[in-house]
Amino acid sequence: MGSMENNHKILAKENEAFATAARVKYYDIVINSGRGAILTDVDGNQYIDLLASASSTNTGHCHPKVVKAIQDQAAQIIQYTPAYFANSQAARLAPRLAELAPISGPTEVVWGNSGSDANDAIIKFARAYTGRQYIVSFTGAYHGSTYGSMTLSSVSLNMARKMGPLLPGVVKVPFPDPWDKLPDESEEQFVDRYFKMFKLPFKTYLPVDEVAAILIEPIQGDGGIVKTPPEFMEKIYQFAKENGILFAVDEVNQGMGRTGKWWSIQHFGIEPDLMSVGKSLASGMPLSAVVGRKEIIESLGAPANVYTTAGNPVTTAAANATLDVIQDEHLLERSTKLGEKAKQFFEDEQKKYDFIGDVRMYGLDGGINIVNPQTGKGDTAATTRIMYRVFELGAIIISLRGNILRFQPPLVITEEELDRAFEMLDQAFAEEAAGKLSLPDNAEELGW
Amino acid sequence: MGSMENNHKILAKENEAFATAARVKYYDIVINSGRGAILTDVDGNQYIDLLASASSTNTGHCHPKVVKAIQDQAAQIIQYTPAYFANSQAARLAPRLAELAPISGPTEVVWGNSGSDANDAIIKFARAYTGRQYIVSFTGAYHGSTYGSMTLSSVSLNMARKMGPLLPGVVKVPFPDPWDKLPDESEEQFVDRYFKMFKLPFKTYLPVDEVAAILIEPIQGDGGIVKTPPEFMEKIYQFAKENGILFAVDEVNQGMGRTGKWWSIQHFGIEPDLMSVGKSLASGMPLSAVVGRKEIIESLGAPANVYTTAGNPVTTAAANATLDVIQDEHLLERSTKLGEKAKQFFEDEQKKYDFIGDVRMYGLDGGINIVNPQTGKGDTAATTRIMYRVFELGAIIISLRGNILRFQPPLVITEEELDRAFEMLDQAFAEEAAGKLSLPDNAEELGW
Amino acid sequence: MGSMENNHKILAKENEAFATAARVKYYDIVINSGRGAILTDVDGNQYIDLLASASSTNTGHCHPKVVKAIQDQAAQIIQYTPAYFANSQAARLAPRLAELAPISGPTEVVWGNSGSDANDAIIKFARAYTGRQYIVSFTGAYHGSTYGSMTLSSVSLNMARKMGPLLPGVVKVPFPDPWDKLPDESEEQFVDRYFKMFKLPFKTYLPVDEVAAILIEPIQGDGGIVKTPPEFMEKIYQFAKENGILFAVDEVNQGMGRTGKWWSIQHFGIEPDLMSVGKSLASGMPLSAVVGRKEIIESLGAPANVYTTAGNPVTTAAANATLDVIQDEHLLERSTKLGEKAKQFFEDEQKKYDFIGDVRMYGLDGGINIVNPQTGKGDTAATTRIMYRVFELGAIIISLRGNILRFQPPLVITEEELDRAFEMLDQAFAEEAAGKLSLPDNAEELGW
Amino acid sequence: MGSMENNHKILAKENEAFATAARVKYYDIVINSGRGAILTDVDGNQYIDLLASASSTNTGHCHPKVVKAIQDQAAQIIQYTPAYFANSQAARLAPRLAELAPISGPTEVVWGNSGSDANDAIIKFARAYTGRQYIVSFTGAYHGSTYGSMTLSSVSLNMARKMGPLLPGVVKVPFPDPWDKLPDESEEQFVDRYFKMFKLPFKTYLPVDEVAAILIEPIQGDGGIVKTPPEFMEKIYQFAKENGILFAVDEVNQGMGRTGKWWSIQHFGIEPDLMSVGKSLASGMPLSAVVGRKEIIESLGAPANVYTTAGNPVTTAAANATLDVIQDEHLLERSTKLGEKAKQFFEDEQKKYDFIGDVRMYGLDGGINIVNPQTGKGDTAATTRIMYRVFELGAIIISLRGNILRFQPPLVITEEELDRAFEMLDQAFAEEAAGKLSLPDNAEELGW
Ligand SMILES: Cc1ncc(COP(=O)(O)O)c(C=O)c1O
Ligand SMILES: Cc1ncc(COP(=O)(O)O)c(C=O)c1O
Ligand SMILES: Cc1ncc(COP(=O)(O)O)c(C=O)c1O
Ligand SMILES: Cc1ncc(COP(=O)(O)O)c(C=O)c1O
Repeated sequence: MGSMENNHKILAKENEAFATAARVKYYDIVINSGRGAILTDVDGNQYIDLLASASSTNTGHCHPKVVKAIQDQAAQIIQYTPAYFANSQAARLAPRLAELAPISGPTEVVWGNSGSDANDAIIKFARAYTGRQYIVSFTGAYHGSTYGSMTLSSVSLNMARKMGPLLPGVVKVPFPDPWDKLPDESEEQFVDRYFKMFKLPFKTYLPVDEVAAILIEPIQGDGGIVKTPPEFMEKIYQFAKENGILFAVDEVNQGMGRTGKWWSIQHFGIEPDLMSVGKSLASGMPLSAVVGRKEIIESLGAPANVYTTAGNPVTTAAANATLDVIQDEHLLERSTKLGEKAKQFFEDEQKKYDFIGDVRMYGLDGGINIVNPQTGKGDTAATTRIMYRVFELGAIIISLRGNILRFQPPLVITEEELDRAFEMLDQAFAEEAAGKLSLPDNAEELGW
Repeated sequence: MGSMENNHKILAKENEAFATAARVKYYDIVINSGRGAILTDVDGNQYIDLLASASSTNTGHCHPKVVKAIQDQAAQIIQYTPAYFANSQAARLAPRLAELAPISGPTEVVWGNSGSDANDAIIKFARAYTGRQYIVSFTGAYHGSTYGSMTLSSVSLNMARKMGPLLPGVVKVPFPDPWDKLPDESEEQFVDRYFKMFKLPFKTYLPVDEVAAILIEPIQGDGGIVKTPPEFMEKIYQFAKENGILFAVDEVNQGMGRTGKWWSIQHFGIEPDLMSVGKSLASGMPLSAVVGRKEIIESLGAPANVYTTAGNPVTTAAANATLDVIQDEHLLERSTKLGEKAKQFFEDEQKKYDFIGDVRMYGLDGGINIVNPQTGKGDTAATTRIMYRVFELGAIIISLRGNILRFQPPLVITEEELDRAFEMLDQAFAEEAAGKLSLPDNAEELGW
Repeated sequence: MGSMENNHKILAKENEAFATAARVKYYDIVINSGRGAILTDVDGNQYIDLLASASSTNTGHCHPKVVKAIQDQAAQIIQYTPAYFANSQAARLAPRLAELAPISGPTEVVWGNSGSDANDAIIKFARAYTGRQYIVSFTGAYHGSTYGSMTLSSVSLNMARKMGPLLPGVVKVPFPDPWDKLPDESEEQFVDRYFKMFKLPFKTYLPVDEVAAILIEPIQGDGGIVKTPPEFMEKIYQFAKENGILFAVDEVNQGMGRTGKWWSIQHFGIEPDLMSVGKSLASGMPLSAVVGRKEIIESLGAPANVYTTAGNPVTTAAANATLDVIQDEHLLERSTKLGEKAKQFFEDEQKKYDFIGDVRMYGLDGGINIVNPQTGKGDTAATTRIMYRVFELGAIIISLRGNILRFQPPLVITEEELDRAFEMLDQAFAEEAAGKLSLPDNAEELGW
Repeated sequence: MGSMENNHKILAKENEAFATAARVKYYDIVINSGRGAILTDVDGNQYIDLLASASSTNTGHCHPKVVKAIQDQAAQIIQYTPAYFANSQAARLAPRLAELAPISGPTEVVWGNSGSDANDAIIKFARAYTGRQYIVSFTGAYHGSTYGSMTLSSVSLNMARKMGPLLPGVVKVPFPDPWDKLPDESEEQFVDRYFKMFKLPFKTYLPVDEVAAILIEPIQGDGGIVKTPPEFMEKIYQFAKENGILFAVDEVNQGMGRTGKWWSIQHFGIEPDLMSVGKSLASGMPLSAVVGRKEIIESLGAPANVYTTAGNPVTTAAANATLDVIQDEHLLERSTKLGEKAKQFFEDEQKKYDFIGDVRMYGLDGGINIVNPQTGKGDTAATTRIMYRVFELGAIIISLRGNILRFQPPLVITEEELDRAFEMLDQAFAEEAAGKLSLPDNAEELGW
């Protein structure tokens, strides 16, 4: 690692005026530029990006087509609020996105600026359409930071602490985390046990006919890159359908090709009623959307869901370009193919290192548990040591829930870059195994 | 007005996939490009923009410096989530904005993507810092569309309908609208009467020591461009200070030079504890901020208020450029000066036309009531006829609350453009007076 | 006043084990026995009761018929929970009460143990029947102490303090207190002004089609014995009817003959949809009821509103006897007649003493404001001096809202007792006028 | 069974005016009188009471001492509201009850009229004392029917349906029902599994330092007479203590000697911070109390928890007599002894009949599961057949949760009566085994 002087200087300055609440700490760098999967900080240090800006830059940094779209649009018109008037880019994007959505039948779109506000919108539309007030979401879920989506979330206590009372009507049910399988429990028993827990509220205090929607990340992102067991998904989907409950999916993190399909729900053969999209939708420009069955979206009148800048010409231009790139460059296939390679890598490592626990990989999208080999429980210190070492070696990887490595490189990462990243990971694992790694001084502050 | 063919074609297409909830209807146009105060639609028709995209493009459309900032930044790096790592542009903007804020003492900033989420954040920080749960806001206020800010709002019933239960802990008090002054009531009596209404909850059901914050638009925007009576403001401010209540201002609509000062609260000589900013902050790119006293902002830990794209390099680059433009081109002074000219114009018209009621102008920022001369009450039909006629003549002006013309041109509008707009307005007023105007067919659907 | 030794001894003992939250302090006495309007404390001191145990003993203390009913029933069966099985007394009372209610058409009853839980039940039935969630109540209202009714109330801040978040969906509107009439304001202007305030929420943030019920005390009790201006009542009633909102009245304090009619709403010629009854219903035995239109009450299934002891044989026996007494002894007429006498007395005093402000009397049911003659504002110290002096002279009278004397003797009070009470009051007023009265030591703690 | 004519006539009459919501249907009888454990209906039919009016008449029907206490007190004074003045009976009861409570150190009492309002009060005091807003309660719990206690409950969906939004801040966790033990799961594993579920909210969305109280029925009543596994209780108690969370117990159903101890929590050797009492406290007269550590109860000021009739002289006289009876007649020991006898009986039956599942007996307090012998799952139809047959034979027994027989006779039941009841039960079991029983026509409507 080269000099960090500028990084530290700028951070010190920013720090005087910047909220602690707004940054999960990992490494003290200031990002200055990017190309594809390569980032450069303000001291000129380069890093392989294994995080893709939290899955918001699936097309890679500064993809020429996206850059051009933004530049051209900025020169033509930057903003006119779609809350009052249409603009050419958004008008083009809406039907395109509706078309891409895994929803048959008439489909509509509503814009937002963030995954968070899209999930707030899901609450609104689900309540309006059904005339019911409860929403069911899952432990481990991250749905965002506005009051609605924050209430839906349950992956970090700091997302609730001191900020209540939160939105009424949200009920949390346990997500079937694979590491919570009981010893000797079969997949079927595991699914049955969690489905029973899922039904418990409905049997005791939650009238099923007052539930507007079940909202789920088909593959949890910040919860640790964890796929919902398909049989469990099927059961809750059937439950929803039998009870007039809308089935809503959050594709903010896992959509847009991340998992090798456009939408992670497509791994399940299930058609949702409502879907939230964001992050990579506009390659990291602030744009989100709710896509849903037309009759649901039409259940509210204006201005039930308007934002001054949502569907802004520049962000929708970026989104139009992003869709082009994903299609033209076959990024879904690429995600699948490179994901298999990554899976192979991590499974090989798992055989070598007993502290590598569960390995999950769905396209270029993985969660790798780091555990204490004795107890099988998550090992936060080891995780921190490893990720920090990888950072020193020149790649950006972060942890989730303390002991899960989050592996989400841009889908355009080259094989060569990937190989280099694997080398760094392997080296870090080897050093960890050899007891050579130590914790950074501020380890306590780091991570979720 | 020229051909509308492309406009209609594109709208028809968009309409199939776009939510009714997300657009307040006015005119059937698709914005294609813009320069300064001039907009062009997809049929090549031009309009003078008297709305500045809902006060989100104070620097005018495609200001060269803003365009360049966006283009350059897009080429360098489009996005890295400030939720994890700093970027050069945001790191520069944070202290700049803290510096500009009307808050003495250590000040911090937290990013959002919209005015809406900034107001959600105000609820969070106010609750966290005070350990109290209630927030007081005003009737007529627009604070946004996420669950927190929607709950704070009270200017349109469609912002609450079918979407409840809303966020607990928000109490609404009546805003002193000038048109609600009683006959023969002095300003002092008026203020006393409203201050008494303000205090009523505190005397009967709202324990003052459980109120975290009072949130106010010092000049209401969507409520009709209405300045809080200064004596009223002073009273509620004192009330807040005496009772340990934070005083928070929403500058999303009226800040960024709109009223001839950076922040509308500066018309009152009051220093807020918390302030939300958005819209023109990044010239209409999605960026918002809460700026507040450091100790308040530091009352929450991460990730209490994070958004993947909030403080994105491109949007903060646009904001840095926007601040430059406002400063370099003296837009505050310009707003003041042109505002006086506009005030003169509308007051002259008021003398000519008895259907022009209350005229309010604070910099290039005005609300003009259209009333029934007989009853003095708002006349929605007349308002619609006039605004629609102005549109036909070539300027974009919209109504608020049914009977208020909203006058908010870009601050860079030229005097010549302004004069042309005045001519159009005068012509429409004259035609209205002459009974020559008729309602558009879809009048029922139009407006707030 | 005789010895207070036993009173103080017992209170000291009770005090060690009894909650501060549960007693509004007035005088340090322990009630030991009662007959008609006469109370005796544990030291044998006697008092004329001008409070009727907060209007819960309209038939007077130990009315022989009520005593006998309780005694007989206790010997037969004390309790079998109506939540599972009917009992003879409750089965007789239900149709009787339904019959007495000011509701035409099929009417049903549901039992509770307190006025408080009856108002909780009103929320339940109103929501269930309408499918709407908001309830509108008035400032100054007292509806009870359970979470629902506490949320509906707004007459004392200690009824909200530290206990939130309260029940969502309750909106408070200002009650037209006569002392808040503006100088020179006509009754019509006053009513219009308050009706405008009433409508403000509906115009700005409260969708009228989501309001389940308006709940009002037709004559506010703890708010100061204040009758709703009839024109105001008519307006809000019409508003409710036009908008599918249920009209619910709380008759807990003012029903059961207190105002010279069975129900205070009968002074208005209005038929409510739902009504809560309690207090004197069973002559102060714990029994309450909601009486309502059958289709509303039938909108909920069991066990949506059950209480183990609600409709208990002893309490319903007491209620059956209470209805007999009121009917047989013509207590409605008596209330009217003695009320006129009381009105005359207080109006005469008002002429003599300038510190007697507004005098309100509706049957044997009055509120007498004590004011500072200079400012016209309420004078709490004077009120405390007077009520305390009356207590020393031998009558129990308390204050409301600091400066209102609450006059609610048992309806069976004899004329002679009333005359004696008037003498005491006159003496206290005279001494106050002569500046002879002083505050008790613990004046600060006393009263609401 | 004799004639039912009067029963049906009176019920038909009552039915016209009585709410469906207020009665869980079992048998069409109207209770007319009672002595000890024997009830007589309006047709003169007699029944052995195995329900004790839902555990509200532990001292039996019309215990002479209780009857006398009520009669004497009614003759002296029926009611003076403790919200304003003390009365002799309540003043005597408060310290007595504080003394009896399983709380060392200074203890205070606050009155209510129902178990329901007592649990509302627990929410109030817990929030006020801790300054925290969340309350944790358990699935299967019944805490009452006012808005607070209804929100805390989760044993019947009709207690939530159509009545929301409920009180914010209540979080439900799964109660370890023995029938939900996994096959081959040890008690320790079972407890660990449920304790893990208990902790899940605290790890994902519920900040432990914002939880005011955990409220539990140490032995669930309406949930099926189920004792909390002691190791589980110990764990959640420790958890509470470590985290500054108040530990509150609901003794409304299981207190007052029902389980062989004064309070069911005494089976666990745990000292609660707050306790709600009701039902048998005044032998079924409407009286409840919260008993708690003085400093907690003193955290609220008046009138935070007042009710007009709570602590009424007659009900507190009945309570004083009830305490005397329990003490003088050694009802705790009696409950224990007869409970053992009952346990023996049901366990013997269990051996004879394979449809008798789990048998739980804690003093004269039992839950007997009726199951399908093939599947081991609850058999609602069989349960209904059995209980209905027992009713025909002359005893009142009801079901809980569809398939649990609730066994709670008055504690004064004679051994002879008990033996007769056992005969009836045995006969019904035998007939069920022989396939001789059929469902009553209205079986669908019956029960919880
Ligand atoms: C699954 C999921 N939903 C929603 C969001 C919120 O998106 P945003 O940060 O854009 O508000 C995120 C962000 O991490 C996410 O991962
Ligand atoms: C005063 C005010 N606050 C907040 C907002 C919400 O901002 P946004 O639309 O960016 O969410 C607006 C938007 O009109 C506004 O005028
Ligand atoms: C109008 C009114 N409603 C309801 C109540 C509550 O009745 P309770 O005290 O029986 O709960 C009262 C008690 O004062 C009251 O005056
Ligand atoms: C455990 C428990 N708590 C509270 C209650 C509510 O008591 P009440 O019916 O007196 O309101 C009950 C009533 O069944 C109960 O069983």
